[in-house]
Amino acid sequence: MKLRYIPLGGLGEVGRNMWALEWDDQVLVVDSGLMFPREDMPGVDLVIPDISYLLRKDKKVLGIVLTHGHEDHIGALPFVLKRLNVPVYGSRLTLGLVKPKLKEHRILREADLREVRMGDRFQLGPFRVELIAVCHSIPDAAALAIKTPAGVVVYTGDFKLDDDPPWGRPTDLARLAQIGREGVLLLLSDSTNAEREGHSGSERDLIEPFGRIFRDAPSRIVVASFASNIHRIQQLITLAEEFERRVVVAGRSLQTNVKTAQELGFLRVPQGMMVPLKQVDSVTPARLLLLMAGSQGEPMSSLSRYANRSHPATVVREGDWVVISATPIPGNETLVNRTINNLYKHGGEVFYSTTAKVHVSGHAYRDEIKVMLETVKPRFFIPVHGEYRQLLHNSRIALAGGIRKENLRIVEDGQVVLLTPESIELGEQVPAGYVFVDGLGIGDVEQVVLRDRTQLAADGMVIVTIGLDRSSGELRSGPELISRGFMEEAYSAEVLEEARRAVVADLARFQGEPEPALVRETAHDAVQRVIWRRTKRQPMVIPMLTDW
Amino acid sequence: MKLRYIPLGGLGEVGRNMWALEWDDQVLVVDSGLMFPREDMPGVDLVIPDISYLLRKDKKVLGIVLTHGHEDHIGALPFVLKRLNVPVYGSRLTLGLVKPKLKEHRILREADLREVRMGDRFQLGPFRVELIAVCHSIPDAAALAIKTPAGVVVYTGDFKLDDDPPWGRPTDLARLAQIGREGVLLLLSDSTNAEREGHSGSERDLIEPFGRIFRDAPSRIVVASFASNIHRIQQLITLAEEFERRVVVAGRSLQTNVKTAQELGFLRVPQGMMVPLKQVDSVTPARLLLLMAGSQGEPMSSLSRYANRSHPATVVREGDWVVISATPIPGNETLVNRTINNLYKHGGEVFYSTTAKVHVSGHAYRDEIKVMLETVKPRFFIPVHGEYRQLLHNSRIALAGGIRKENLRIVEDGQVVLLTPESIELGEQVPAGYVFVDGLGIGDVEQVVLRDRTQLAADGMVIVTIGLDRSSGELRSGPELISRGFMEEAYSAEVLEEARRAVVADLARFQGEPEPALVRETAHDAVQRVIWRRTKRQPMVIPMLTDW
Repeated sequence: MKLRYIPLGGLGEVGRNMWALEWDDQVLVVDSGLMFPREDMPGVDLVIPDISYLLRKDKKVLGIVLTHGHEDHIGALPFVLKRLNVPVYGSRLTLGLVKPKLKEHRILREADLREVRMGDRFQLGPFRVELIAVCHSIPDAAALAIKTPAGVVVYTGDFKLDDDPPWGRPTDLARLAQIGREGVLLLLSDSTNAEREGHSGSERDLIEPFGRIFRDAPSRIVVASFASNIHRIQQLITLAEEFERRVVVAGRSLQTNVKTAQELGFLRVPQGMMVPLKQVDSVTPARLLLLMAGSQGEPMSSLSRYANRSHPATVVREGDWVVISATPIPGNETLVNRTINNLYKHGGEVFYSTTAKVHVSGHAYRDEIKVMLETVKPRFFIPVHGEYRQLLHNSRIALAGGIRKENLRIVEDGQVVLLTPESIELGEQVPAGYVFVDGLGIGDVEQVVLRDRTQLAADGMVIVTIGLDRSSGELRSGPELISRGFMEEAYSAEVLEEARRAVVADLARFQGEPEPALVRETAHDAVQRVIWRRTKRQPMVIPMLTDW
Repeated sequence: MKLRYIPLGGLGEVGRNMWALEWDDQVLVVDSGLMFPREDMPGVDLVIPDISYLLRKDKKVLGIVLTHGHEDHIGALPFVLKRLNVPVYGSRLTLGLVKPKLKEHRILREADLREVRMGDRFQLGPFRVELIAVCHSIPDAAALAIKTPAGVVVYTGDFKLDDDPPWGRPTDLARLAQIGREGVLLLLSDSTNAEREGHSGSERDLIEPFGRIFRDAPSRIVVASFASNIHRIQQLITLAEEFERRVVVAGRSLQTNVKTAQELGFLRVPQGMMVPLKQVDSVTPARLLLLMAGSQGEPMSSLSRYANRSHPATVVREGDWVVISATPIPGNETLVNRTINNLYKHGGEVFYSTTAKVHVSGHAYRDEIKVMLETVKPRFFIPVHGEYRQLLHNSRIALAGGIRKENLRIVEDGQVVLLTPESIELGEQVPAGYVFVDGLGIGDVEQVVLRDRTQLAADGMVIVTIGLDRSSGELRSGPELISRGFMEEAYSAEVLEEARRAVVADLARFQGEPEPALVRETAHDAVQRVIWRRTKRQPMVIPMLTDW
């Protein structure tokens, strides 16, 4: 029998991380992440993995193991559990971040959440799973060592190496080395920063620059960071304590995470330091630290609304020092830039990645990836968690580190890999496409709808209503044309009138009883032809036929 | 009388550079650039400056002076000249790049293009204009010194400092220093890289890395760069000559520019080196350099199509070495990343800004901006060409360089600035908004159309057709509902049927002769209500009423 590795997301494209190991039709699932929609997915709220493979009747899903609490690893869990209510295993904080999501989806009560600690081992069918502490931009993150009948599979999770992090634990290289010595069949290794030379740096590198900001800021300090970066938030709260500033938290995700992290002991906030958002303006400016969500410039986030002066609680003022403690994710640059422009325009001083050292990455750079590889010493290697370019660069690190070419596979979502203690080979392709979440709908938006939305966005639409006598073919009402998203009304009237006359003329050629489909097509073509000639645009033309 | 500086574009936002000086209602215009649409301008092809101020009856526009041939400085010229046919002044290459555009718009014959050389001075009404050579990422680029009755205005244009560029001229600091010594009233200074410490580097820095690529490439070399970066292209052609590779050019813009630059003596291509694109596969792979447009990952560009294997002439193959010799403009990162992924997937080796030194910027970094300031020694200072954050950083460089705070203004598009030899102050606001070009239309797409397009893109639309008897109010046909871009048909049927029943029920409440507007509103609200409750989506709902 062969061990099956099944990537369901996160390979060849970032986000919606999810994969599975299968032995004898028994399946262990790791992570259930979501992806935020790309620009070619208009109107889509979230993108989740396709789990139809897991729902097959011949498969027995034993449980889902979560590595850490980032959206791209846990965000799809509510949607998955609704269709596949299996036990969920994760660390204390990870489950703490999962719970509010399940509650929002009203499935917390039915969910079977099982907390595991770093170092714990538990058996799931043929799999023995161990969580190993890793350092990442969220506390309580884990790598996994999974003992299978074919050998041990190690998944790095999202990780970096930091020997002496100011908060939280370092990556447990000692344990990984021990597992490595005992023999590892396969390493699945985080590729996010495989293009980047050197080392990702330490949270410790930020103590000095943040300290300087706290020392010198003349008025309010505002910091936007990822809502789940609890260590960063701890650093800021510690500085606030030292410099005697009160702390206000703005943004729902940040408030939820701060509360959860405090309750679970991952964040220490001195008594009486927190001030509710509503009372933000009662704090002396030079005594205030305002923590905000929105480091990616998301238009509805606290930071964006604070920056464009539309936030109900407080807005940017002359003298505020604002730190954007994150790097823009590709695609978000223009949103972040817009936020920075707004902050400057209204008199804020801004610290951001182009001009100041205010962020370090949570993902290993090349040197760290090398150390992980040398520590785990796997027989086979699959780069995971990245776009193709990142997977490729990670595979090159592995090749340079002594992995033989035939022992390495770069695969993309849905490509099954088969393993025995001595061999690695490609299996079949399984479904691993996108499932779109739009409003309450899951999977009811697919390619046809997106194609229509894209066309509607580009040139708008024109509706042609026609009332035809069913027996004589005589025009009884219309054609009437109206448009939306096409041209401003002052300009469209003439074009639409010409199109209307073209429809009348073309319909006049029919004799006797008209075929509705042909009438619709004729009207459609006449309108499209006139509009293209006059404007070189292609709005969606929709003929509506009424029978008299 | 006061000298009026009128920014019509390029301040507070990148692109569509255009500004004017005015004395006694006589106006000198500088540049006529376009901007590529932002993601919140769906379906818009181009964004050009609003020139309604220049079209005012009391203004006499003397001419347009162009600084260099980049789209963001010349791209709107055809649209401007159609409404304002005044003489256009520019350097040889700049006008050479303008001509094909005017030809395409069929206005080349009427256009009054006047070539000027670096160092030439010419009088336009009260203005005496001199072009001064600057180094930039396009040859034959100029700064301007404009002698006005109030004093001399110096515009840096887009510039960098490179004492010894391998091709083209260095920035003429000697002449700028001389003008500086004679006294400069106002400096308008390029802010693009004002956030960046140090120096932008030299085209010379690329000789070594490009040389290594040519030395080591086992098969075809493909380089994508900006189509107007003639010096970069010259460097590559020189290397191709040295390493005995033939050259093929792919991409219309690149082909046009290479042809123009050759004809005008800005690009030297050895006889017999060029091979037509159609014959690209007849060249031995190790003897080929393929120059391509599309360094920003534009989906229809040669590079994108070569990378996703849809280009009709040639596609990426195992062993191709591909250089993306540009940095992604903010907003284009995901497109560029997609292209890189495709290249790697199909076996290409890729060199890009994250992993290799294959590009230097054409815009001055902080140290160069400082040198320009110290050379020109202006009394007043206005940072130009940049988003607000960049303007602000440039103004800080000026403050640090000795410009007094009251002698400096950060202004945005449309904000007139008034100058005398002794004073600078803000004047009124003039129109300087967006004008959108969509297909053949100019200005017929504005906020209403964009808002509709945005809504259509997000959730699609639902059309409700109703035939009502005008006198009795009786329903004679429909309601019939159809949707586009809303939900896949298999899912929408049930929701639309429920909405239809809601319309029938709500209309049944009317008695007697119905008011059409009220019928429409009732149908609209019933459909919207049901859809929101069932899906939490807000498609555009369009009621169409037919009278019987």
